[in-house]
Amino acid sequence: MEETFVPFRGIKNDLRGRLLCYKQDWMGGLRAGIRILAPTTYIFFASAIPVISFGEQLERDTGGTLTAVQTLASTSLCGIIHSIVGGQPLLILGVAEPTVLMYTFMFNFAKDRKDLGPKLFLAWTGWVCVWTALLLFLLAVLGACSIINRFTRVAGELFGLLIAMLFMQQAIKGAIEEFRIPQRENVNQTAFQPSWRFGNGMFALVLTFGLLLTALRSRKARSWRYGTGWLRGFIADYGVPLMVLVWTAISYIPGNNVPRGIPRRLFSPNPWSSGAYSNWTVIKQMMDVPPLYIVGAFIPATMIAVLYYFDHSVASQLAQQKEFNLKKPPSYHYDLLLLGFLVILCGLIGIPPSNGVIPQSPMHTKSLATLKHQLLRNKLVSTARKSMGKNSNLGQLYRSMQDAYNEMQTPLVYQLPSSLGLKELKESTVQLASSTGYIDAPVDETVFDVDKDIDDLLPVEVKEQRLSNLLQALMVGGCLAAMPFLKKIPSSVLWGYFAFMAIESLPGNQFWERILLLFTAPSRRYKVLEEYHATFIETVPFKTIATFTLFQTAYLLICFGITWIPIAGLLFPMLIMLLVPVRQYALPKFFKGAHLQDLDAAAYEEAPAVSYNMTFDDQDPQARTPNIDDGEILDEIITRSRGEIRHKQSPKVTSSAPGSVTSPRLSQRAYSPRVSEPRVDRSPIFTSNGVELKQTPSPGLSNLGKSNPGSSSC
Amino acid sequence: MEETFVPFRGIKNDLRGRLLCYKQDWMGGLRAGIRILAPTTYIFFASAIPVISFGEQLERDTGGTLTAVQTLASTSLCGIIHSIVGGQPLLILGVAEPTVLMYTFMFNFAKDRKDLGPKLFLAWTGWVCVWTALLLFLLAVLGACSIINRFTRVAGELFGLLIAMLFMQQAIKGAIEEFRIPQRENVNQTAFQPSWRFGNGMFALVLTFGLLLTALRSRKARSWRYGTGWLRGFIADYGVPLMVLVWTAISYIPGNNVPRGIPRRLFSPNPWSSGAYSNWTVIKQMMDVPPLYIVGAFIPATMIAVLYYFDHSVASQLAQQKEFNLKKPPSYHYDLLLLGFLVILCGLIGIPPSNGVIPQSPMHTKSLATLKHQLLRNKLVSTARKSMGKNSNLGQLYRSMQDAYNEMQTPLVYQLPSSLGLKELKESTVQLASSTGYIDAPVDETVFDVDKDIDDLLPVEVKEQRLSNLLQALMVGGCLAAMPFLKKIPSSVLWGYFAFMAIESLPGNQFWERILLLFTAPSRRYKVLEEYHATFIETVPFKTIATFTLFQTAYLLICFGITWIPIAGLLFPMLIMLLVPVRQYALPKFFKGAHLQDLDAAAYEEAPAVSYNMTFDDQDPQARTPNIDDGEILDEIITRSRGEIRHKQSPKVTSSAPGSVTSPRLSQRAYSPRVSEPRVDRSPIFTSNGVELKQTPSPGLSNLGKSNPGSSSC
Repeated sequence: MEETFVPFRGIKNDLRGRLLCYKQDWMGGLRAGIRILAPTTYIFFASAIPVISFGEQLERDTGGTLTAVQTLASTSLCGIIHSIVGGQPLLILGVAEPTVLMYTFMFNFAKDRKDLGPKLFLAWTGWVCVWTALLLFLLAVLGACSIINRFTRVAGELFGLLIAMLFMQQAIKGAIEEFRIPQRENVNQTAFQPSWRFGNGMFALVLTFGLLLTALRSRKARSWRYGTGWLRGFIADYGVPLMVLVWTAISYIPGNNVPRGIPRRLFSPNPWSSGAYSNWTVIKQMMDVPPLYIVGAFIPATMIAVLYYFDHSVASQLAQQKEFNLKKPPSYHYDLLLLGFLVILCGLIGIPPSNGVIPQSPMHTKSLATLKHQLLRNKLVSTARKSMGKNSNLGQLYRSMQDAYNEMQTPLVYQLPSSLGLKELKESTVQLASSTGYIDAPVDETVFDVDKDIDDLLPVEVKEQRLSNLLQALMVGGCLAAMPFLKKIPSSVLWGYFAFMAIESLPGNQFWERILLLFTAPSRRYKVLEEYHATFIETVPFKTIATFTLFQTAYLLICFGITWIPIAGLLFPMLIMLLVPVRQYALPKFFKGAHLQDLDAAAYEEAPAVSYNMTFDDQDPQARTPNIDDGEILDEIITRSRGEIRHKQSPKVTSSAPGSVTSPRLSQRAYSPRVSEPRVDRSPIFTSNGVELKQTPSPGLSNLGKSNPGSSSC
Repeated sequence: MEETFVPFRGIKNDLRGRLLCYKQDWMGGLRAGIRILAPTTYIFFASAIPVISFGEQLERDTGGTLTAVQTLASTSLCGIIHSIVGGQPLLILGVAEPTVLMYTFMFNFAKDRKDLGPKLFLAWTGWVCVWTALLLFLLAVLGACSIINRFTRVAGELFGLLIAMLFMQQAIKGAIEEFRIPQRENVNQTAFQPSWRFGNGMFALVLTFGLLLTALRSRKARSWRYGTGWLRGFIADYGVPLMVLVWTAISYIPGNNVPRGIPRRLFSPNPWSSGAYSNWTVIKQMMDVPPLYIVGAFIPATMIAVLYYFDHSVASQLAQQKEFNLKKPPSYHYDLLLLGFLVILCGLIGIPPSNGVIPQSPMHTKSLATLKHQLLRNKLVSTARKSMGKNSNLGQLYRSMQDAYNEMQTPLVYQLPSSLGLKELKESTVQLASSTGYIDAPVDETVFDVDKDIDDLLPVEVKEQRLSNLLQALMVGGCLAAMPFLKKIPSSVLWGYFAFMAIESLPGNQFWERILLLFTAPSRRYKVLEEYHATFIETVPFKTIATFTLFQTAYLLICFGITWIPIAGLLFPMLIMLLVPVRQYALPKFFKGAHLQDLDAAAYEEAPAVSYNMTFDDQDPQARTPNIDDGEILDEIITRSRGEIRHKQSPKVTSSAPGSVTSPRLSQRAYSPRVSEPRVDRSPIFTSNGVELKQTPSPGLSNLGKSNPGSSSC
């Protein structure tokens, strides 16, 4: 979007854009029916579980001033408000690790000040929140978000990886803690005898790795070969929650052979227990805070404001990546304004504020894309079956499906792209059919295999609505009531889940993929070319890639290291913001502009996989090119490329060359610097193979995608 | 081989055949140099570890009469003798699970007889061994092994799966035992307090699964993308032993935080401890056995004889599968004769006899195939590099490589096949080169990529020699001296290793693959067609496959069940032998001859993977077609097809048809019964893609392979 700093303009645009879709946001959600529960529960667990453990963490670090009750309350409250009056309903709000760090730092600062101390801590944070909110208002009003596009890949991905590291750190710390005696517990319990502690720790390892491995597998269920399609779909949709249940059940197997307290389970006071309320009235004490500290609160406030401004926007940005082809406009400015209000609200009732969270927000969009895909698919399949029942020929078949497709569309959708997709597939199929002499004959499954070919027609689309967000927020709120049940989850399962989230957020992060590239044996680098790969792999010399990646890694480690330093840790959001100017002014001094553009591309033309791929080379399960089965491609597209539109040529173009001889040539060329191709959208050559169609938003669509941030296409 | 029952003829043939190669058997092994250690250690662990734990098992079940010392001694002794004077040096000897079962049954029988009792048990088994040996002599002399070809796939694979089940059962039992108090231990140790037992059990689970998962992964190291080729190769070669070391090291991490005895480690008396010798003098007591029992010993003897006859022959058969293209003749009759002597020897010194073992024997051949491949490869690569240095053109390049290849061959090898392979690749490459205008130009890496293209030239060959077998036998013997070190291995690591062996033996077992097919979702069955698959999948109606598999499964379960029944368990070898007549006379009544031939094929024409495969469909890592990287194909070929020669058409033939439309048609045809094609060797159409070349022993080779059992091609 254009960078305008005219006060209120950004907010006005956002409001106008979103209001147009508001009704549809709800209707669409309701029309999705029961299936909406899949993404909802998926996100519910993804936001509830970390929030609970952050609550535990806060309780330890703030001497019980803040607990899971507060973090859950904040997440639920902010989530509900945002999902109803917020701008971008894809954005998931929650109490995030950075917030926890901030509050820990502030507590450590406050508790030693005699005229502040633990009892005035919350009141003081109330002031911090007030200041923070004011700064956020300022940023929102002045349209600071219009520079969102300067938060390039470098910053976003570095932040994403930092979050992943914090999650993983939490997982490891947690697993180790299982061998130790937790604080705030009386040491004399049987469960804390060395022998039982050892058993508990080992049991924890089993549960942690059990959950991690099974959860990772369950996400791939759609591509499993065994079991009915229904079962596979169910596991893929609900696998992760399911695994949490399964491993919780397993944790009860030892039963009475172990003393209670083994394995350790989630700890949190019940919300209805006395004391859990103490903080709600914090507003009354805010006046007791010494003026000096009220003013001083401005310092942490700036940090938090910067952090939230950045975190909120980036989370929102990642939830609206281009390849999702969102039809509805973004709302950065307005959401930031709303965030301000939420921060004040939270501050006044003495709970830590929530903000847009990574990786949950992108996870949310991803799961909604899968949902939309399923809905479209079912509709088209039934239509196709019907029209084949009336044994119509291919032409009629496609016409009827086209109609069905159109009527599925939200009133706001721009028709060309998908219909183009249909047309293209039609042509290729018709051509094949005629070659096999099927043309005009009534279509049967041999020419048009409904279950598989339908997938080839569907472009990536996201079920954009507010219901899933609202429901998950309500469910998070429900956790407060369901606390007794949540407490049955072993903490070790939680650590496994943390590791799972960290790993889930890695694929598609180009920074991460570049790090892996550094560890790839030179003799194997050609393999990268056989997958969908970022252009820089072909256009940027390896040495440059390495230097750039090493720089980024160093920067990441500094950010990570800083979070360990007690008070200085407050600076880490600054450090991340610093990346924007660094990227803009410093980096160009060290790297060629073209290279930098490729390494830090927001959207780029994806280079085609080389023919090799079509011969027998694909060994690495991660590396495999997507299967055209329902939903799988989406998982692929979405995880393997973040924030990019993919354009690739038909494999046919290259497939004639014998792979084993071609590819080495290719790979060599790939690693010698060569003139970077112009990044124009080369309109892709379609084949009847679903994958290309799927992964290629046809020009219309991609334009839509490009113009997405800021374009109010409705 | 022809079924001749003329006394001694079989033995004479075997001796003649093997004597011709005897010198070369040793020279070849020595020429391999240091690399011989890879297969040697691999097999050493595969035979030593189970033998040790069988020893433990025997110690428990025979009240300490027999221990790991005896089982190790037997394995080593028989191994050494067989590797030196034995016929087929690929065959690995060892004390096997069935033997252990037999001895357990016999002990349970003997210990209650007052005039026999534990103290005369070994003496009695001495007699059993004598009888057994006599029966084996009879079988060998009368050429019973010439009906080896009637041990069809059905029997062999069922037996293989039974062994796998016994291994897996052992692994699970063992892991559970870790939570219990072992027998023969004093219950008052700290390690056996409930709390520590729980800890020990959980720790055991961690170690067991740790070893299992890492070992399985390490076998695939060659296809890893990260790390240098050298490292990957090393891990793939020595991964499993390495993992045993790693996890043993990990088991020491808790150090002094746990009482000694946690985790539990291998248990065995040191061979130099008193009492370990008691049995060596058993021959002296043999005369004290009451005559009735001497005669009665004939009954178990027949069982054991049958078992060994079958087990020894099948193990040998599986170690000489057709697709290994062995150049040297088999030696079933002579080896059985030798086994007879070994049995007597073991019986007289009171140790349980050894016989040919599954899965170690096929594992042995497999690892030697990889070795041979590496040796050939290095030679050719260096030659190619040299000749490219003299910038010769393609023609010269291939000529020089051809020469190098020939001089690598054992004097006995029949040249046509591989040179044909070279010629074929040459043509295709030349053609490509000319199309790209490279012809006659000095070759460079872009036309001929040494590291990769060399692999396309190499047929599957096995380093047939006696050294690896001798060395591993000696190392097993060394275990007796190294007992103090072996005792550092946690028993839980051992259980993991058992599970690993069970799983390693599954792929390529068509019986197992048919079981999986039953669980494959109908909508996914077409995927099977996209891999290399047995012909029956296309020629036999699914219903028939299902019935046949269910029958086989039922039979397997009966055999497995029988091993649980105390004394009747002695019958289970009978049951397996029974399969031969069942297959020959009963089954044809229920199944069409053609179907039966396909389902129970010894060698068959493999159906080509459908074009689909070359598009983007291959999701399942297990299912992927081989990568042409060094060694990987071998792992693939060898594990994915057992005892079959593969012939496939060039993918090009089909690759023009767009997959998503083709394959459903194919898969439909595939599941409707259709006329079975004649099983003649259709000489394959080569492409320049390495995989076909690799997996297609050209006519010459396959003839060699076919005529292998019995043909003395040297």
